[in-house]
Amino acid sequence: MMIRFPISLFPLSAPAALTQDDLKKLAAVKAVEYVSSGMVLGLGTGSTAAFVVAEIGALLSSGKLTDIVGVPTSKRTYEQALSLGIPLSTLDGHPRIDLAIDGADEVDPDLNLVKGRGGALLREKMVEAASEKFVVVVDDTKLVSGLGGSGLAMPVEVVQFCWKYNLTRLQELFREQGCEAKLRLDDGGKPYVTDNANYIVDLYFETPIKDAAAAGEEISAFEGVVEHGLFLDMATAVIIAGKDGVAVKAK
Amino acid sequence: MMIRFPISLFPLSAPAALTQDDLKKLAAVKAVEYVSSGMVLGLGTGSTAAFVVAEIGALLSSGKLTDIVGVPTSKRTYEQALSLGIPLSTLDGHPRIDLAIDGADEVDPDLNLVKGRGGALLREKMVEAASEKFVVVVDDTKLVSGLGGSGLAMPVEVVQFCWKYNLTRLQELFREQGCEAKLRLDDGGKPYVTDNANYIVDLYFETPIKDAAAAGEEISAFEGVVEHGLFLDMATAVIIAGKDGVAVKAK
Repeated sequence: MMIRFPISLFPLSAPAALTQDDLKKLAAVKAVEYVSSGMVLGLGTGSTAAFVVAEIGALLSSGKLTDIVGVPTSKRTYEQALSLGIPLSTLDGHPRIDLAIDGADEVDPDLNLVKGRGGALLREKMVEAASEKFVVVVDDTKLVSGLGGSGLAMPVEVVQFCWKYNLTRLQELFREQGCEAKLRLDDGGKPYVTDNANYIVDLYFETPIKDAAAAGEEISAFEGVVEHGLFLDMATAVIIAGKDGVAVKAK
Repeated sequence: MMIRFPISLFPLSAPAALTQDDLKKLAAVKAVEYVSSGMVLGLGTGSTAAFVVAEIGALLSSGKLTDIVGVPTSKRTYEQALSLGIPLSTLDGHPRIDLAIDGADEVDPDLNLVKGRGGALLREKMVEAASEKFVVVVDDTKLVSGLGGSGLAMPVEVVQFCWKYNLTRLQELFREQGCEAKLRLDDGGKPYVTDNANYIVDLYFETPIKDAAAAGEEISAFEGVVEHGLFLDMATAVIIAGKDGVAVKAK
């Protein structure tokens, strides 16, 4: 199911001058229409999710939304939501979530996702898997015909212990897809450390992953792999912002 | 296949006075017969594995073994092997291991294991899964008819983030087996932290796990679970020390 909203529905002065940030914000505002008062909300991580959290904060402070509890998926999102006065909890306190909203790095035609370029894949997956509905917000540059097809990273979170061993095994697993595996580094050139004290191995594919479900299982079976960025059969709707307006795609 | 060695083969003065430590040492010495010069060896963790490491160290220093590289499965084993002068490496340096020797907490009739009461399950599983042969050393109190049947802990390593959420999910998963899940604490009453900065949830079963393979897959599928203590289809031989002597069981 695909519903398109003409761009004229949105209060934008100059559609021709839409930046990628404008598109993200447009989609974020649309996503927050799924939110109603009284909900427990999973709050995503990344530049698009930050627009969602800002919008929820604005609706709370204006009184248009009440009685919201947010479950953040990263320390960054926690800080942002806290600064906006959004009441916060965790999965320990609220193991069932009504609705999660988050960005994604890739979306395929079946609404399967690659996520985690922001480094928060594990907490995102825990929260979003616990959510009754999961709405994904992207601009249209994130659409791919097959996962891994953007040529950008598909992240795998691994324990620090013998990360090279797992990096080699991961690269070997996807040899047919021309996979190159790289340890993610921070701005200082040191290994990037996740909120859970693990490393991230980024996988780059020459050709898309053929069978994402099988790939997910094979990656998870490696000892020392904590989580991977394939979010399969989880999204209930994807909101896509493009130069022609905002489209909603649902299963 | 089961081979029994009469106790008289072993130089023990008073068989009637055999302690559990004597039995562990007996089995450890038998296990080290599998070691030959030139091997890369996975070195296990725990009281029985410590006897194995000590024996390897003794054979190296006497010159009966040469050209051994050890890959330790914990910081504790690393320290012990280092103190004995055993040359050491990691999976990063030696991704293929000839033989691993380690203890176990439970052994079922198919040589499937529960391991990890010592807290090193993840590193043990990584090293032992990379080993061509995996010899397990136990005293006969560790034999069970079904895994989980000893009434002692089956450990699951989980990320610290929302550990209560995963504890509840794990307990719920095995409700039929009367499972009780507890966070492992250290001697000071604080959460026990693994070498990988994670927590351990110990599962206690009233009745053994019915389908260990299915259970392993279901536990692994939980986001935030890093590894579990079911070591299935991994052991190539189990050496069992009992009051009647040492038995070797192989597939």
